[in-house]
Amino acid sequence: MRYKDDSLALHTDLYQINMVKAYWEDGIHNRKVVFEAFFRKIPFDNGFAIFAGLERIIEYLKNFSFSDDDIAYLREEVGYEEAFLQYLKSMRFTGTFRSVREGELVFDKEPLIQVETTLAEAQIIETAILNIINYQTLIATKAARIKLVAKDELVLEFGTRRAHELDAAIWGTRAAYIGGFDATSNVRAGKMFGIPVSGTHAHAMVQAYRDDYTAFKKYAETFKDCVFLVDTYDTLGSGVPNAIKVAKEFGDRINFIGIRLDSGDMAFLSKKAREMLDQAGFPNAKIVASGDLDEYTMLHLKAQGAKIDTWGVGTKLITAYDQPALGAVYKMVSIEDENGVMQDTIKISSNAEKVTTPGLKKVYRILNKRTNKLEGDYITLKDENPQAEKRLKMFHPVHTFISKYVTNFEAINIHQNIFVDGKLIYELPELKEIQQYALENLNYLWDEYKRSLNPEEYPVDLSQKCWDNKMRNIAEVREKVARFKEDE
Amino acid sequence: MRYKDDSLALHTDLYQINMVKAYWEDGIHNRKVVFEAFFRKIPFDNGFAIFAGLERIIEYLKNFSFSDDDIAYLREEVGYEEAFLQYLKSMRFTGTFRSVREGELVFDKEPLIQVETTLAEAQIIETAILNIINYQTLIATKAARIKLVAKDELVLEFGTRRAHELDAAIWGTRAAYIGGFDATSNVRAGKMFGIPVSGTHAHAMVQAYRDDYTAFKKYAETFKDCVFLVDTYDTLGSGVPNAIKVAKEFGDRINFIGIRLDSGDMAFLSKKAREMLDQAGFPNAKIVASGDLDEYTMLHLKAQGAKIDTWGVGTKLITAYDQPALGAVYKMVSIEDENGVMQDTIKISSNAEKVTTPGLKKVYRILNKRTNKLEGDYITLKDENPQAEKRLKMFHPVHTFISKYVTNFEAINIHQNIFVDGKLIYELPELKEIQQYALENLNYLWDEYKRSLNPEEYPVDLSQKCWDNKMRNIAEVREKVARFKEDE
Repeated sequence: MRYKDDSLALHTDLYQINMVKAYWEDGIHNRKVVFEAFFRKIPFDNGFAIFAGLERIIEYLKNFSFSDDDIAYLREEVGYEEAFLQYLKSMRFTGTFRSVREGELVFDKEPLIQVETTLAEAQIIETAILNIINYQTLIATKAARIKLVAKDELVLEFGTRRAHELDAAIWGTRAAYIGGFDATSNVRAGKMFGIPVSGTHAHAMVQAYRDDYTAFKKYAETFKDCVFLVDTYDTLGSGVPNAIKVAKEFGDRINFIGIRLDSGDMAFLSKKAREMLDQAGFPNAKIVASGDLDEYTMLHLKAQGAKIDTWGVGTKLITAYDQPALGAVYKMVSIEDENGVMQDTIKISSNAEKVTTPGLKKVYRILNKRTNKLEGDYITLKDENPQAEKRLKMFHPVHTFISKYVTNFEAINIHQNIFVDGKLIYELPELKEIQQYALENLNYLWDEYKRSLNPEEYPVDLSQKCWDNKMRNIAEVREKVARFKEDE
Repeated sequence: MRYKDDSLALHTDLYQINMVKAYWEDGIHNRKVVFEAFFRKIPFDNGFAIFAGLERIIEYLKNFSFSDDDIAYLREEVGYEEAFLQYLKSMRFTGTFRSVREGELVFDKEPLIQVETTLAEAQIIETAILNIINYQTLIATKAARIKLVAKDELVLEFGTRRAHELDAAIWGTRAAYIGGFDATSNVRAGKMFGIPVSGTHAHAMVQAYRDDYTAFKKYAETFKDCVFLVDTYDTLGSGVPNAIKVAKEFGDRINFIGIRLDSGDMAFLSKKAREMLDQAGFPNAKIVASGDLDEYTMLHLKAQGAKIDTWGVGTKLITAYDQPALGAVYKMVSIEDENGVMQDTIKISSNAEKVTTPGLKKVYRILNKRTNKLEGDYITLKDENPQAEKRLKMFHPVHTFISKYVTNFEAINIHQNIFVDGKLIYELPELKEIQQYALENLNYLWDEYKRSLNPEEYPVDLSQKCWDNKMRNIAEVREKVARFKEDE
């Protein structure tokens, strides 16, 4: 490597820097702007998503600065002029960054984060922010789906070897913990985040000792807590009986937690193994299952009466196998004009879903105080106060004739100020508290939204003002394009 | 964070360290072992895969060492005893590491890498090595599929915002380059690896200037090379005509490379845009397409006569969307016994695919000297020399009655020594050379193996000795299990 990899400021798309160059030449790089990030569709056809990524974004923004090597690369290989490079060198994040909490329930088409800063800064930081929240939110959501199926049974994150490179293993397992996982196999993640770590031995240990019995015995001689992996040679013929044999021989000298199944038909094997353990006098020994599990296979195994107590989940979780990308985007909703007045902006598309909602907004979560359940989210322009309404009218943002009135509600603004004028003012909770927050939030959601298959659509509605403002912006753009066509 | 994230030694599964603890207690931690990594199925139902990941593995092994913070964490949070911690602290990679080259064509069930070292070291490094090669090989392979459809047209990697966290964006785009991509949008990857970087402007710039015309003009005032993004408001009504207008106004002052389409029906829009550009006197202006593209959509767009010259590929490449995990595993094939003699080992499974092939092996690529095309790969035990054969018998490793004889061939050993006795002896080629190597290798492959749908199965055969050795090992294990059952 010719240049040191000593900063994340260049972890951005080239077009961001090119746009900043054009703005800087034109003298508009310091105009105030508002960008918001949101996704258009909840992943996995789930009824909710769980936000994650804030810890890493905070580190990124706090340390945002182009290193000397960054500047040298841009000078020598991309060829920007010196004055612009000096401008980049001086750039820090000086704005306001608002976000929902990690562990927050989030839904489609509502802002997860809001960036209010200069046009130049807002552009450069887009790519890394999306890179972080797209992945971490995806995994926290997948983990919550799995945990909802597992209920009170333990779920362990075992996916490092299949994760998309090292960061995904580490930050993915943190996101999984937020979504409700109990522990991880990744020791580095344990060290970095304090996540409980879990794991005993692999097939290799049985191969090293050439038979199950010796391997289990050697493990038991070293560790008090024992989970024996029983499928190296023959699960029911050798693995389970040898686990039982060693457990009997060691008696109280070990804590025989149980066995792990890693291949074969889990429904059949777990039931047979359960019988063998029970008959041998180990009714409390647990059966851990691993190997390409996810919420679908877990649900089916449970439906077939599989006797599994603990679930090790790897590939399907850490890669979000059935939908490996969350499509959160980051769109400009407002920009300062030449007179210093903020003007709303819109991005139009032939695809109605892709038309943005202009203006700096607030997201209120509407909690029904009678039921203590959520009625939906209510997006307003920044100066509205839904709490002042006696009867809040919520209407569907596409099928606007579908509407309801809500009374006796609490309107909770879900955004937190994280940075204000470039200064970090938010203290991130302990990871355990974030997990707790996510789990508690799920209690406010009706079960209909928590089904893993075909959940109800949670209402994310626009206030009348917000909707009118969007329509006005669409009309203005249409008018402008029409005028251009006439002129041509 | 209580502990500094200052080493990758703990980027492993807890069970690896626990096994090492048991081996260390038993005094067998320094026994020589051989582990091999391979995958069982080529991803995407492709006819070949392209290996990547070696650069990062070299860095990892070269720097392998537990930091003081690693040890402190293991002492305080996991609770290992002091003598074992001191042993871990002294651990370095002292063995031999063999690998195929980056950019090498690889196939299912053949060793990609071979680790010959102490039992303890071989266990600890497994997780990180799989984490790296699984992802990077997956992406290099996906990229090659896309490039085979694009043929001579440029393909640009645009996926950072959807990658699985930061490392995947960086190492994924490097793997994509190896697989044949021409450039990346990720500037940090450009800086780290010298990959060409690409990108002009986004929708935000059009929104900032509130109309296409002004935005394109401002861009053209700043940059000589211009690609205008035309779908912010109305592709054919405003975007394309304004791009043409600016191109005409600026004339020779800019190099009007072309336009970019990022939404809408690409077949229809590209054909219309092509007509408009041609009629306006810009027959050489290129049309760049982006937005959820992959080899399938590209093939269909081409079949419909879409006029697209350059392809920006993001999500579907960088997440390997249609199969986001490669299942390479790392298995012990041989271990030193108490008398210092290497003994082959096997892992049995009720799933025939999961039975390993015992023993340290060599992989020979059999090149037919008449056709200059590959006949298949031929896996031997370590002391065989297929080149000495006049007529080489190659038989299917499952359906053994399917066989062929090959004459006039060259048998090429595809493994390189990377580390020998802990010392790095391999010099990694320049990235551009690695890409070139991959592209040239594809020339030795018959077209039947390069079809993106339903390719032929490339032969990966075992030598007679290797096959006999496997059968003998299976029989031994079966015999041992049977004896155990009788004893019970």
